[in-house]
Amino acid sequence: MVTLTQPAALVPPGPNGGGKHYHRADRRAVAAATTVRVGPHLIGGTALSIMAGPCSVESAEQLLATARSVKAAGATLLRGGAFKPRTSPYEFRGLGEEGLRLLADARAATGLPVITEVMSERDIDLIARYADVLQVGARNMSDFALLEELGRCGKPVMLKRGLQATIREWLLAAEYILAHGNSDVILCERGVRGFDNEFTRNTLDLNAVVVAKTESHLPVIVDPSHGTGRVDLVIPMARAAIAAGADGIMVEVHPDPPNALSDQKQQLDLPGFDRLMAELRPLAALLGRTIW
Amino acid sequence: MVTLTQPAALVPPGPNGGGKHYHRADRRAVAAATTVRVGPHLIGGTALSIMAGPCSVESAEQLLATARSVKAAGATLLRGGAFKPRTSPYEFRGLGEEGLRLLADARAATGLPVITEVMSERDIDLIARYADVLQVGARNMSDFALLEELGRCGKPVMLKRGLQATIREWLLAAEYILAHGNSDVILCERGVRGFDNEFTRNTLDLNAVVVAKTESHLPVIVDPSHGTGRVDLVIPMARAAIAAGADGIMVEVHPDPPNALSDQKQQLDLPGFDRLMAELRPLAALLGRTIW
Amino acid sequence: MVTLTQPAALVPPGPNGGGKHYHRADRRAVAAATTVRVGPHLIGGTALSIMAGPCSVESAEQLLATARSVKAAGATLLRGGAFKPRTSPYEFRGLGEEGLRLLADARAATGLPVITEVMSERDIDLIARYADVLQVGARNMSDFALLEELGRCGKPVMLKRGLQATIREWLLAAEYILAHGNSDVILCERGVRGFDNEFTRNTLDLNAVVVAKTESHLPVIVDPSHGTGRVDLVIPMARAAIAAGADGIMVEVHPDPPNALSDQKQQLDLPGFDRLMAELRPLAALLGRTIW
Amino acid sequence: MVTLTQPAALVPPGPNGGGKHYHRADRRAVAAATTVRVGPHLIGGTALSIMAGPCSVESAEQLLATARSVKAAGATLLRGGAFKPRTSPYEFRGLGEEGLRLLADARAATGLPVITEVMSERDIDLIARYADVLQVGARNMSDFALLEELGRCGKPVMLKRGLQATIREWLLAAEYILAHGNSDVILCERGVRGFDNEFTRNTLDLNAVVVAKTESHLPVIVDPSHGTGRVDLVIPMARAAIAAGADGIMVEVHPDPPNALSDQKQQLDLPGFDRLMAELRPLAALLGRTIW
Repeated sequence: MVTLTQPAALVPPGPNGGGKHYHRADRRAVAAATTVRVGPHLIGGTALSIMAGPCSVESAEQLLATARSVKAAGATLLRGGAFKPRTSPYEFRGLGEEGLRLLADARAATGLPVITEVMSERDIDLIARYADVLQVGARNMSDFALLEELGRCGKPVMLKRGLQATIREWLLAAEYILAHGNSDVILCERGVRGFDNEFTRNTLDLNAVVVAKTESHLPVIVDPSHGTGRVDLVIPMARAAIAAGADGIMVEVHPDPPNALSDQKQQLDLPGFDRLMAELRPLAALLGRTIW
Repeated sequence: MVTLTQPAALVPPGPNGGGKHYHRADRRAVAAATTVRVGPHLIGGTALSIMAGPCSVESAEQLLATARSVKAAGATLLRGGAFKPRTSPYEFRGLGEEGLRLLADARAATGLPVITEVMSERDIDLIARYADVLQVGARNMSDFALLEELGRCGKPVMLKRGLQATIREWLLAAEYILAHGNSDVILCERGVRGFDNEFTRNTLDLNAVVVAKTESHLPVIVDPSHGTGRVDLVIPMARAAIAAGADGIMVEVHPDPPNALSDQKQQLDLPGFDRLMAELRPLAALLGRTIW
Repeated sequence: MVTLTQPAALVPPGPNGGGKHYHRADRRAVAAATTVRVGPHLIGGTALSIMAGPCSVESAEQLLATARSVKAAGATLLRGGAFKPRTSPYEFRGLGEEGLRLLADARAATGLPVITEVMSERDIDLIARYADVLQVGARNMSDFALLEELGRCGKPVMLKRGLQATIREWLLAAEYILAHGNSDVILCERGVRGFDNEFTRNTLDLNAVVVAKTESHLPVIVDPSHGTGRVDLVIPMARAAIAAGADGIMVEVHPDPPNALSDQKQQLDLPGFDRLMAELRPLAALLGRTIW
Repeated sequence: MVTLTQPAALVPPGPNGGGKHYHRADRRAVAAATTVRVGPHLIGGTALSIMAGPCSVESAEQLLATARSVKAAGATLLRGGAFKPRTSPYEFRGLGEEGLRLLADARAATGLPVITEVMSERDIDLIARYADVLQVGARNMSDFALLEELGRCGKPVMLKRGLQATIREWLLAAEYILAHGNSDVILCERGVRGFDNEFTRNTLDLNAVVVAKTESHLPVIVDPSHGTGRVDLVIPMARAAIAAGADGIMVEVHPDPPNALSDQKQQLDLPGFDRLMAELRPLAALLGRTIW
C-alpha cells in the first residue's frame, strides 16, 4: 500500500546519532573515498568521468550522432533527458519511455552507459530498466519520497544540488538515499541561484565542490552547462571545475544547438565538445587524473 | 501505470498560447477573483481564512486541545502535519495515516475542515480521503509530477512558494495544477531564503503577496510562522500580512510549544493564538474584511 | 590633517566590550526607546514620522508644489535628493548645492524640516548647513569613514540598510555613528536585494523592521518606494510597514512622476500621497500611533 | 572646495551614449586588452600577477618576513592593509600612516611594488604617496565620491566587486574611475554573499571572472582568501581561478596566521604560499601564462 515508512524512524549509526548530520555521507564514516562502478568505468577515484549528451533526447539520429561523437572524443557516459522537468506545463516535456528506448539503443551502438533523470517515484522502476545511472534534478533534490525510493532502486544515483540548497541540505539529501540502502551516490554541483542573472543563468559554486569533497566521501561532478547557461562559458568553467578537484563533468552536447528543443544557448556542438576534451586532457594529466 | 502524460503536450488557452506564461492563473483569465469553498467557508473573497494548528500531529489530546481552542478563537481551518518533509532522514517524520485519522477525528469534534501536507503522488489518494485541502510544501513546489496528479485529485490544493522560487515559477507551478483540471488552487507565501538568517529563519516576502494578488486571481495566504521562525514575530507579521492584502494566514499553534516534536521556536501557544485573533479582528474590520 | 582616527581603537562600553556587538545600539543599553527631535517633531515614540518628497530636487516649482501638498496631507519631513548616488556616471546626479538651497527655501515656505542624502565626508559640512537630517543611502551604509564623520556632524542621521547588509551589519553601522558621539540615529529599511526582480525592484524586509525594533532602541522607518520600486505597491506595503510596527515611512512623491528625472516608476503623484495618508490615519489610530 | 562635480554631467563617448552602459570599460572600446604597468610588471597580458601579503600590516618584522618569503616564491606585488574597513567600530582598524611607511620600507627592501586599500577620498593623497596601486574594497565599491576622486589620483586602482554587486554594477563602478581620467583600472572578484555561509565565508563567483574578461578589456584578479574564508580552500580555488582565465590572484599570507590581528582563518602561512606557487607554475605554463 501507499504510505511512507511511517512511523518507524531511521536510526543514524554511531554514538553521535540523530539530528541534522549526514552520518553516512560523512568522510569519516568510511576508510576510503567512494567509487561507483558504471559499466566499464569507476566514478570517483583517479579517472575523470565525462558525461555528455543532449539536454533532451529528440530522435534516434540526434542521439546516435551525439553519442558516437562524444564517445570518440572521450566521454564515459551518455546523458539525455527523457522525462524533463519544465517550469511551465506548456513546454516540451521529453519523449518519455520512447526516449529511454533511444538511450538504450545508443548504449548498444556505442557501449556508453546511460544517465537520465527521474522526476517521480512512480517512474523509478521504468527508468531503472533502461538507465545505468538515475539522476535527480535540482528541482527534486528535496523530494524526500523520491529520495527514499531511490535508496531501494538498485542503481547508482546522481544527486544534483538544489537551486537553493545549502551544502548541508545537499549532503542530507544524499543521506536519505544512503540511509535507505543505496551506497552508490554521486553528487553534482550545477549552479545555484544568485542575485544576478543578467549575464549567466546561475552561479556555479566551485567552493561547494571543494567543501563536498572535504566533508563527504562521495564523488562530485560539475555541470558547467547549467552552471553558466552559456556555451562560451562552458569550457573555461569546466577547466576551473577540474582544477578545483571535481571528479568529472556533465555537459550538454547537441549536433545542432540552435535547433534544439531545449537549452539552445548552453549546449556545445560536436566540435565544441572535441575542443573541451582537448583542453581537459593535459589539465587532467597535470593534476594526476586520467581521462578515458 | 507508470508513465507521465508523455509525449502529449498541454495546449495553453488563447491566442498567446505557449511559453512561460501562467495563462490560467492570470488575473485577466477570469471575470472575478477565485474563491475556494472548503466546508462552510470560502477562501478568497471578503472573509479572511485563518488556518491554525500544530506543526505535527502528535496525539489525539494535543490535536483536540488545539482544535477546540483555535476554533473558539476564530480559526476556519485546522492545520496539522501527518507526513512531514524533513531535511534529515533522522528527524521525526510524522505519524502518517494515524495522523490523518486524528485530523479527521478533530474535524468531527469541532467542525473545522482540515488541511495537511502531501509530499508524494503515491499518497494523494490516501490523504484526499481524509483531508479537505491538500497542501504542497515549499520543498515540493517544483515537483511537477506531484503537481500534475494534484490537478486530478478532486480536492482544493494550497501551494506554498518554494524557498527560492521566483513569483513566475510559483504562478507556473499553480498553472500545472490548473491545467490538469483543478481550479481550486490557493497560494501561500511562507518566506524565502535570504542572505541573513541570524535573527529570522526566512525572509517573509510581502511584496510577493501584493504581486500575486495583482498578477493572478487566486487567493493568497501568508504563513508568518515559517516566514519568521520566531514566535515573537508571528503576531506583528500576521498584522502586516493582512494589512498588505493577504486573504488569510496559516499559523502554527501548539498547547506546549517547548515540548513540540518539531518547530518548537515558532509555534504560538493557545493564549498566544487568542491574542493574535484579538489583534486581527479590528484590523480586518478596518480593511473591510470579515473574520469568522 | 587627513588620516583616520588611527591607531587609537574605540573602547566599547561595559564588561562585555569588544567584538562584533552593537553595544550602544543595543536595546538594553538604555532605559527607553530613543526619540530624535527634528524641528517640531519627534521621530520614534508614539507619533508616526511621514517623510515625503521627490526622489531628486529638480526645480523650485517642483519642490514647492510637492512640499505644500504633502504638508497639507500630513507629512512631517520633506525629502529630496540634491547629491544622488547613481549606478552609472552618465545619469543625472542631482543639483548639488543648488538643490540644498531649494530645500531650505521649501522649508522656509512650509515649515517642513528637510532630510537629504550625503554621499561623501567632504560634503557633510555643506549639507549640514542646510538639512535637518542627513541620510546615508544603501550604497554607503558600509562607508565607515563617512559614518565616523557623521558621528561628529551635530545633526540627526538616518541610516538606510545596505542592499545586502545583514541586520547585524546594519546595527553595527549605526554603532559607528553612535560611538563617535552622535546619539540621534534613525534606521531605515528600504528593501534588500533578492533573487527575483522581475516584478519588484527589491524585497522589502519587514521581518527586519520587527527585529531592529527588538534588538535596538533606535527608531525604524520604512521606505516602500525603494522597497518595491512600483507605485502601485507603495500604499499596501506602507500599510504593512505600519502594521508591523515601523515608526514611520519615507515615500517618494512627485507632481508629475512620468516626467521625473529619476525613479519615474516608484513615485506617488500628489493625489496618490493623499490616498496613502487617508489609509494610514485610521490604521495608525487603531495601532495607538498618532499622525500629525 | 567641497561639492561634487555638479551639475555638469559626464558625456559618455560614442553614438550610443548615456544610460547604464559601461562605454569605456567595454571590450569593444579598445583595440587590445588593457595592461597596467606597476613597477617592473604588467598586470594583464600574458604574465600572471601574484599579489600576496598579510591582511593587516602589523609590524616591520611581520611585514618584512612575509615580503621576503613571498618575493622568493614568485609574488609580484606586496599587499597589506593599513586602513582597514571593519564591520564593527571596536575591531582593529589598521596602523594608518605608520602601516604605509612599513609598506614602503618593505618595498625598498624587496623591490616588490605595494598595493593597499583606500576607504575615504580624504586619504587618497596620503596613500598615493606611499602605494603603487590603490585598492577599493568590496564595501566601498559603490562609494561614488571615492571612485570619482580615484579617477584623478594618478595611480592604478584595483576595484573589488561589492558583496552584493551585479556584474553590471561592478563594471559601471570601474566606469566611474575611467570616466574621470584614470585608465589604469584592475578588477578583482573576491566572493559574493550567498545564502549559505556555514562552510565558506563567501561564494567565489568564477563565472563572473569569465564574464568580466568577455565584457571588458580590464585585467581581472581573483582573491580566493576572501572568496572562501578558509585556508584549506585557498589553493584549490586559486587553481580554479587561473584555469578559468583570471589574470592573477591576491592572497593573504602571514608568518603566523593563528596570531594574526585579523582574518586568522584565511591567511596562508609562508610554506603554504610556497605550495600554492608550486602548484600554479605548471598550471600557468599549460595555459600559456607566465609567472615571474
